[in-house]
Amino acid sequence: MTKTVYITRRETFNAAHKLWNENWSAEKNEEVFGKCSNKNWHGHNFLIYVTVKGVPNEDTGFVINLKDLSEIIKREVVEPLDHKNLNLDVPFLQGMLASTENLVVQIWDRIDGSIRKSGGELVKIKLVETENNFVEYYGGNEPY
Amino acid sequence: MTKTVYITRRETFNAAHKLWNENWSAEKNEEVFGKCSNKNWHGHNFLIYVTVKGVPNEDTGFVINLKDLSEIIKREVVEPLDHKNLNLDVPFLQGMLASTENLVVQIWDRIDGSIRKSGGELVKIKLVETENNFVEYYGGNEPY
Amino acid sequence: MTKTVYITRRETFNAAHKLWNENWSAEKNEEVFGKCSNKNWHGHNFLIYVTVKGVPNEDTGFVINLKDLSEIIKREVVEPLDHKNLNLDVPFLQGMLASTENLVVQIWDRIDGSIRKSGGELVKIKLVETENNFVEYYGGNEPY
Amino acid sequence: MTKTVYITRRETFNAAHKLWNENWSAEKNEEVFGKCSNKNWHGHNFLIYVTVKGVPNEDTGFVINLKDLSEIIKREVVEPLDHKNLNLDVPFLQGMLASTENLVVQIWDRIDGSIRKSGGELVKIKLVETENNFVEYYGGNEPY
Amino acid sequence: MTKTVYITRRETFNAAHKLWNENWSAEKNEEVFGKCSNKNWHGHNFLIYVTVKGVPNEDTGFVINLKDLSEIIKREVVEPLDHKNLNLDVPFLQGMLASTENLVVQIWDRIDGSIRKSGGELVKIKLVETENNFVEYYGGNEPY
Amino acid sequence: MTKTVYITRRETFNAAHKLWNENWSAEKNEEVFGKCSNKNWHGHNFLIYVTVKGVPNEDTGFVINLKDLSEIIKREVVEPLDHKNLNLDVPFLQGMLASTENLVVQIWDRIDGSIRKSGGELVKIKLVETENNFVEYYGGNEPY
Repeated sequence: MTKTVYITRRETFNAAHKLWNENWSAEKNEEVFGKCSNKNWHGHNFLIYVTVKGVPNEDTGFVINLKDLSEIIKREVVEPLDHKNLNLDVPFLQGMLASTENLVVQIWDRIDGSIRKSGGELVKIKLVETENNFVEYYGGNEPY
Repeated sequence: MTKTVYITRRETFNAAHKLWNENWSAEKNEEVFGKCSNKNWHGHNFLIYVTVKGVPNEDTGFVINLKDLSEIIKREVVEPLDHKNLNLDVPFLQGMLASTENLVVQIWDRIDGSIRKSGGELVKIKLVETENNFVEYYGGNEPY
Repeated sequence: MTKTVYITRRETFNAAHKLWNENWSAEKNEEVFGKCSNKNWHGHNFLIYVTVKGVPNEDTGFVINLKDLSEIIKREVVEPLDHKNLNLDVPFLQGMLASTENLVVQIWDRIDGSIRKSGGELVKIKLVETENNFVEYYGGNEPY
Repeated sequence: MTKTVYITRRETFNAAHKLWNENWSAEKNEEVFGKCSNKNWHGHNFLIYVTVKGVPNEDTGFVINLKDLSEIIKREVVEPLDHKNLNLDVPFLQGMLASTENLVVQIWDRIDGSIRKSGGELVKIKLVETENNFVEYYGGNEPY
Repeated sequence: MTKTVYITRRETFNAAHKLWNENWSAEKNEEVFGKCSNKNWHGHNFLIYVTVKGVPNEDTGFVINLKDLSEIIKREVVEPLDHKNLNLDVPFLQGMLASTENLVVQIWDRIDGSIRKSGGELVKIKLVETENNFVEYYGGNEPY
Repeated sequence: MTKTVYITRRETFNAAHKLWNENWSAEKNEEVFGKCSNKNWHGHNFLIYVTVKGVPNEDTGFVINLKDLSEIIKREVVEPLDHKNLNLDVPFLQGMLASTENLVVQIWDRIDGSIRKSGGELVKIKLVETENNFVEYYGGNEPY
């Protein structure tokens, strides 16, 4: 019988952003995005939780070596995002709103392949923006 | 391809309650509910996490505007429950035990319609009573 | 040379209370205490942190045995307050407002002697009411 | 209509362990497990969250009495693991790597039957090793 | 005998900033401030804890009404800083480095007078920038 | 007027230890140290908070560069203690009980000089063993 276990690694990054739709007037942006549309930016301490599933290996007891998982997240997420401006500094976020929803989808595409090569299966990313709000993404799947 | 994202908003409220079955003797209540049956009430700092799923809107990057979601929770949950007595002050909890399990089910019914009108789909409520216990409700669905 | 170390033990209790001055009208109570004056009570998960100072004992490495400190707090604080109503169920809070400020002062007087008998010196109590407010008391001393 | 609710209880334990494969050289262990292979052990404050699902009972408002659930976890998990060495002191972990993945699977088998006898259905265990990593297990099921 | 109690209120704000000395070359800024010197800004979720001391009032049980304290912090700190750029949007931070050290000193000067008018004595501000670093300020006093 | 600010850096390490007095019988050790005397060790996730005071530098806005402070803590505390056995692997803890009280005093002596060379003044170390207990040390000073 398979014993599928889900393992999660947390990393952190701090970034600036604003919510701003170029096609809208300043008034419309203010109306929809409120304080988040401040033209001079604001920022957050983001927490990212990446979950990989698999059957623990008999020799290691591991679903995936957390050292490998941590390195993937640091290379693909923390390095391009930490102490950066999500709107200005991040090539893979160009052409879209810098919302946490859009960010979590883009992060999935950046790490999914590397995790697969390490022998794991990416199943969930949780991205925490503040203690009062976070997003979760299952690669487009809808478990509930 | 659809990119369904799950977004969660946290709000808080502080309330008093007791666990007490009117049809039972004081001894039976004490036996089943222990300290929670204290006739003079006790209380908690409750945390509520409301999760909505959807595809991020292209113009806003949002599944749902958190301002709208927050307002719904404040109007339907925080206002009637914060600094209240769950047994005495809350019409929608009358006629049932004031347990977190029953509370989370009632909250669902209060906010589901309003969230739908805002364009979101309510999929989960997590209600935290203490650092050691919480309940989750998926509208009667059973994802696992 | 003395090596004075400060050691802190955390315990928790959940209680109901209201802020209500018997000598005032309902309107005056509402005006001063706001939601906290709800006549049917509300409640909190309280966290209490008790700090004792001393020089670590050579044989044990301890300022005070945390088992002893925990037992004192459980007997003098948790037992009389947990799942209780601060206004109705707690003899040592009678005749005063059931505020956290008054509560922390009363707790000091209940545990100070027992801690001294265990060989420690009580120097601080921190009492957390919500994630947004807490009180600290140094036995009337004013370190800053 | 059934109103299935999920309720979770948290308990804690502190333990020592090391990751070490007896069939490998010291170099190989060091290469795969890094610092976790230190021969003299290291340790963690583990948090365990046990989730049970069910329909709230009409008389109690409970899915399961948390007093019962807490007692099961304390007897089957906390007592054999708290202030213990996972590699040396725990019979049910013999013959396997002392990883959190393997630990969470073994804990499931220890508590599943007792929870069923108490009228609940165990559906998830979350085991937190540090603020940066945790594992989740659904009894071999794969909700996502 | 006076019973001086210390009471603390927490508020939060999210802001962008960068550490940048105009009199230095880009290389020097990079060398001293590292990632924090990114010209396009980064940001944080700041937590501010404001501590006021006093003797609890007999009629209210309060050192200071937390409603008043919260309003002062919201007006003088949260409103000018939340969802703002500390370098560009905040008049009282002009002409100095936008470090948390400098920020906490400026905040003191903004709220000290208002708190005094409300009958309290400001004694400490703690400003948390990330889970790994925070500053504390006692108005220039040095309690230890 | 001097504007003394206190800045704190947090680091973490995970270690095994036991409380055991070599001069005592097993029974006496068990009686005094309880579960902490388990001969096969147990362990914790330790959090260390190091506080340095000083006047913010005009050119940097810093009391001390947190990069320097972090490096000192990593070199002198995290490297010798992380994933180690406090009783067996740590030269500077030999000949004394491996209690958090003794550990915090030893850590002070290891980092005080390096911090002074970096231009800061070490004034406090807080060492957290579990969510329920921690110690604080002010270099032998007694601020309260």
